[in-house]
Amino acid sequence: MQPVLINGKWREAAASGSFQAYNPATKDPLPDDYPVSSWADCDVALHAAVEAAKHLRRLPGAQVAVFLEAFADEIELRKESLVAMAHAETALPVAPRLADVELPRTVSQLRQAAQAARDGSWTRPIIDTKNNIRSCFMPLGPVCVFGPNNFPFAFGSLSGGDFAAAVAAGNPVIGKANSSHPGTTRLFGEAAHAAMQATKMHPATVQLIYRTSHADGERLVSDPRAGATAYTGSRPAGLRLKAVADAAGKPIYLELSSVNPVVILPGALEERGAAIAEEYKSSGLMGAGQFCTNPGLVILLKGAATNRFLALLIEKYHAAPVGTLLSAAVEKALAQSVEILQAAGATALVGGAARSGGTGYCFANTLLQVSAAQFLADAETMQTEAFGNAALVVVADDIEQATAAIEHLEGNLTGCIYSHTGGADDAECERIMVALSPKVGRVLNDKMPTGVAVSAAMNHGGPFPATGHPGFTAVGIPTSIHRFAMLQCYDNVRPHRLPAVLHDKVPNDTIWRSIDGNWVQG
Amino acid sequence: MQPVLINGKWREAAASGSFQAYNPATKDPLPDDYPVSSWADCDVALHAAVEAAKHLRRLPGAQVAVFLEAFADEIELRKESLVAMAHAETALPVAPRLADVELPRTVSQLRQAAQAARDGSWTRPIIDTKNNIRSCFMPLGPVCVFGPNNFPFAFGSLSGGDFAAAVAAGNPVIGKANSSHPGTTRLFGEAAHAAMQATKMHPATVQLIYRTSHADGERLVSDPRAGATAYTGSRPAGLRLKAVADAAGKPIYLELSSVNPVVILPGALEERGAAIAEEYKSSGLMGAGQFCTNPGLVILLKGAATNRFLALLIEKYHAAPVGTLLSAAVEKALAQSVEILQAAGATALVGGAARSGGTGYCFANTLLQVSAAQFLADAETMQTEAFGNAALVVVADDIEQATAAIEHLEGNLTGCIYSHTGGADDAECERIMVALSPKVGRVLNDKMPTGVAVSAAMNHGGPFPATGHPGFTAVGIPTSIHRFAMLQCYDNVRPHRLPAVLHDKVPNDTIWRSIDGNWVQG
Repeated sequence: MQPVLINGKWREAAASGSFQAYNPATKDPLPDDYPVSSWADCDVALHAAVEAAKHLRRLPGAQVAVFLEAFADEIELRKESLVAMAHAETALPVAPRLADVELPRTVSQLRQAAQAARDGSWTRPIIDTKNNIRSCFMPLGPVCVFGPNNFPFAFGSLSGGDFAAAVAAGNPVIGKANSSHPGTTRLFGEAAHAAMQATKMHPATVQLIYRTSHADGERLVSDPRAGATAYTGSRPAGLRLKAVADAAGKPIYLELSSVNPVVILPGALEERGAAIAEEYKSSGLMGAGQFCTNPGLVILLKGAATNRFLALLIEKYHAAPVGTLLSAAVEKALAQSVEILQAAGATALVGGAARSGGTGYCFANTLLQVSAAQFLADAETMQTEAFGNAALVVVADDIEQATAAIEHLEGNLTGCIYSHTGGADDAECERIMVALSPKVGRVLNDKMPTGVAVSAAMNHGGPFPATGHPGFTAVGIPTSIHRFAMLQCYDNVRPHRLPAVLHDKVPNDTIWRSIDGNWVQG
Repeated sequence: MQPVLINGKWREAAASGSFQAYNPATKDPLPDDYPVSSWADCDVALHAAVEAAKHLRRLPGAQVAVFLEAFADEIELRKESLVAMAHAETALPVAPRLADVELPRTVSQLRQAAQAARDGSWTRPIIDTKNNIRSCFMPLGPVCVFGPNNFPFAFGSLSGGDFAAAVAAGNPVIGKANSSHPGTTRLFGEAAHAAMQATKMHPATVQLIYRTSHADGERLVSDPRAGATAYTGSRPAGLRLKAVADAAGKPIYLELSSVNPVVILPGALEERGAAIAEEYKSSGLMGAGQFCTNPGLVILLKGAATNRFLALLIEKYHAAPVGTLLSAAVEKALAQSVEILQAAGATALVGGAARSGGTGYCFANTLLQVSAAQFLADAETMQTEAFGNAALVVVADDIEQATAAIEHLEGNLTGCIYSHTGGADDAECERIMVALSPKVGRVLNDKMPTGVAVSAAMNHGGPFPATGHPGFTAVGIPTSIHRFAMLQCYDNVRPHRLPAVLHDKVPNDTIWRSIDGNWVQG
């Protein structure tokens, strides 16, 4: 049985059971056994994390940066084994994906987080010299990270955006590995351990457990010693954690389901329908559709251009290779969702059933269709997320009906609108934008949602139930760091007792601060 | 029966009952009857607010500013009647308080909010020109405001900081009057109504109901049409609203109980004990102690200086006039809290019982005392908030014990430390600061917590259960505005479809924006 990483030591877990990961391409179990930790492991990890948090709160950001950079270097040293392990555990392609896209993105995120920790602008210092009141963001305490199945590196519990943001803010992290890629997470744990030792960080800065009971997971996120939680995954499990964290008054940042509506207006289809069909197919089937921002709901207006577009899309979906799904659970959930949509009246344009043959977990590339009237008759069911390579096409009679469908949407991460480049759709686009914008965290034009740039201007967030709070983003540095910080004000506090970022003179000349209403650097 | 203000009309409530306010100085009921609204009123108000929100989302900030300024002017025109009504309903002094402090502060806040809406820097535009990704904060939708009993103007449902912030962000407000001052809230409703008409705002921009059943209040904050809620008041009622809002995924900003610890170190007492006693007495008894930031917990170290300080404080508490409490409920709750503390082992240094005689609601000026050992033995009970003119003094044997007491504190709005000006207490102060800072939203040195400056650097917030989330402040413009906004990102969106603040050229030269990592103005 693999050990857990607690307070700087790889030690035997206080296990209540064990589990194995599976190779999704063969459905064979992988050799290593991983422990299901009992509460004793969580308790010891929390205790150590509290000590680490006290230490980190007073550590200069520059030292946190040194650790994050050393960690990025350690990851690059382990690149081959990480890619091999992640490929075995997720069946995601080595290239183009794990080796040449996701791993570079992951180390780049860690280095951006390091830069943010060193620079300190993320603390957003605000100084009122007249009243001698100064405030900034400060770390929140131990952060529990529950990473998703679909990005073993870039959103991993010990390597991804939540991890990077939590550490950049000066918090220790207790990572709970995703059960579908424990080996990958273990390798990140080894890299973090080496980096912690090399940079003399508190040994509980990064800790790792693999799995707990649901009850212990709920106890962990609501423990008085926890600072906050980041969770990316299924809606039901996320909402259970949210309920207990909320009741305990603990911030919890969730990234749950999202169907990511795409509205394609007639003028755009007339102008460049074939190109959009290709673009949609690529985005919709990328990673077998297992992206948070997968475009799972397409809204079209009835007409000849739409008919041609759909005919083309059906061909492409037939012709496209069927990707491997991440796990038996994903395959089962996808089949169930498609069944729910069909039972509610959706008809299959292509696919719609488990694919026979082959050795791995998979499902036929699927497009379902309903009229907007059908959609409106049971909008809640029609928004059932089909996580994977399936999407629902809604065909509206007119712009009124399309707008009504959008007004019935739940909160989503993204919403896209394609319109004629010459402005032929502009009146319709305006109506759609007005209805769509309040429903989504990111509005796109003429672009599919699957690319999530790591940019300070990015919002990978949105209204509930896409996330737990519409004011925060999970991607984009330094903005994503604020989730793991508390606002702290110093009122008439003597100068030598202030955090460095609030001193009259700051130690670096890159930090941006708001002084008496003006942003100044240094 | 007084009408409610819904969608621009003063109309008869769909009432399930009625209530009256009382004059706390005489315990006599005041003449007007106010309705307890049934769900029908809430439903109509929400429906109208959704329409107002659509309109407001597209309204330039400058027009919101014109409304807020007109409202401030209308309030000043009604100053005499507002002060007379609030004095009758709360017994708070006309001067120095309602007429010369709280009303000026209230209109100043509204004018600052107007300036923020006009300027637009609060939307915090972030532009990544390389990727053409742009983001900013946008309004969240209808905001329900539940104001507290203790600041009828500056925190009032239709006049206070939450109201000003919610409207500045471009949201309509549904105000629920505090039941202890419905007449004051009605006068603000009349002023807002006049200002809405004069500035041609959507008629549902500001709406007013007076009271609902608990069940309808819970339904209101969790209704799918609600955007967010701001609540200031008692912990039990706030937590009930939080539970339902959280379950519905609706942001709710709470300001609940806080005992606001004050640590006074021996060197400070040796140096200026008499001055600190006077300062403490003034802060502790100000407004009969009915401030969110009332210093209700004093931590001292055993010794001669502490004994002298306490003897002086007892004298001052005996000699000080006894203020009128806001209501029968406040008087009852205060008596209960003092009883709970005494039952847990606190002894009364002065006061400790209801004051006999007099015509109004009141309680004797009270100081209770426990040892730090007693405090630590039942820290939860010892933190019972005694809202009013009572405080608990904790005397610790040494700095270890004082630090332990602080480590056992719940989240608070403020924490103060008094130390010797020459640095004689600096080692002890450092230990106290480390323990205290993570527990409070605002750290003060050598200053009592009751003054809450309206400053961009202010934090009137703090860890749970002082508030619901440690990242937000209820006071300070523009920071407090973000509570009522969603982060919205525009990815490759065509220029003419962007909000004005994200255009390449902005309409005013004062707005601060972060462009490619640099803050620039205009």
